[in-house]
Amino acid sequence: MTITITAFERSPDGGKGLARDMCVRWALEEVGQSYEAHLVSFQAMKEPVHLALHPFGQIPTYEQGDLALFESGAIVFHIAERYAGLLPDDTNIRARAITWMFAALNTVEPPILELATARLLESDKPWNKERLPLVEDRVRDRLKQLSAYLGSADWLDGAFSAGDLMMVSVLLRLRSSGMLDEFPNLAAYVARGESRSAYRRAFDAQWAVYTGRRDPP
Amino acid sequence: MTITITAFERSPDGGKGLARDMCVRWALEEVGQSYEAHLVSFQAMKEPVHLALHPFGQIPTYEQGDLALFESGAIVFHIAERYAGLLPDDTNIRARAITWMFAALNTVEPPILELATARLLESDKPWNKERLPLVEDRVRDRLKQLSAYLGSADWLDGAFSAGDLMMVSVLLRLRSSGMLDEFPNLAAYVARGESRSAYRRAFDAQWAVYTGRRDPP
Repeated sequence: MTITITAFERSPDGGKGLARDMCVRWALEEVGQSYEAHLVSFQAMKEPVHLALHPFGQIPTYEQGDLALFESGAIVFHIAERYAGLLPDDTNIRARAITWMFAALNTVEPPILELATARLLESDKPWNKERLPLVEDRVRDRLKQLSAYLGSADWLDGAFSAGDLMMVSVLLRLRSSGMLDEFPNLAAYVARGESRSAYRRAFDAQWAVYTGRRDPP
Repeated sequence: MTITITAFERSPDGGKGLARDMCVRWALEEVGQSYEAHLVSFQAMKEPVHLALHPFGQIPTYEQGDLALFESGAIVFHIAERYAGLLPDDTNIRARAITWMFAALNTVEPPILELATARLLESDKPWNKERLPLVEDRVRDRLKQLSAYLGSADWLDGAFSAGDLMMVSVLLRLRSSGMLDEFPNLAAYVARGESRSAYRRAFDAQWAVYTGRRDPP
């Protein structure tokens, strides 16, 4: 059965791989499943047809036969559970990999989202310059803890898993801030994720949508 | 094998059920599993013994035999996957319930966390009074969408599931703001969650820790 996902018709990041369809594309490439990407405009995302698929009017969604899912973390988890390659077989190690998925999305990402909000939605506010360092420090607290945990390991818990896929995806949102470079082991961890062939194929696919070209930067 | 979780020795909310051990206790009560709660001080949470369990120095954690997990969403998912009662058997309906878990934690909760941060950590800032309504509106946007989706249904997707357990847990953080009352169907949804006997047992257990009494308010 064909897998169909949704992605932005025009991504706010212009194809830098930060839209949330990217981690779904990456997961599908890791498990070797082909898919079709249905592009939606910002206007269409707020209309009933799309809201029936995604109650919060966002991308990505995932459809396969009778199944319709939304929420990138849930979709990545579904792919990881259904196809081999992103979750280990051992019950306990599998539970740890899933733990890192949730940790990426609910402990590491919230301050990163807050930083993005401060930069994008509050940049015109008189307080923003004074407030940004406070938000950055909250991000830094999490990066310090994650860096201490990762140490010199390649991945969070043994072999590459869906937990790493989510964590790298979350950390990539920080690249433009320069904060990742304060933690060389995290910067190397993210680069390790980006260098995977599945990541590259996913990146190239979304890049081609936004630029109409096949030669990414 | 005994299940051991960690919880605050002294909860910042004084037992109102907003600490993150609450959703884990609730999940364990829903599936009928007994557990022991190991209480940790704020100091102990930052020390190596606890950091080995929880890299971000928080509660809750979950230990059972050789398995050690952290992150409340991941623990609730593990409980839901391992014991009957929180996830439906049908593959597609199960995937939808998991989708709602992720949506609660990664779409609905981030603006709610931002509001809590603004209230707790930035209340002394000169800009806070002007900024709070902006943050509240971002929460409200999500509540509007969730309210529209829920309509007059009792639960998010048919029968009560781990998705509802997480969503109710996330929405409960808003009670003190009064914002829930702007959406009567969401207020009723949360009340429906709180009235479950498993919720009450979990609430009473954490209340007893902080007050030494067995008669909650």
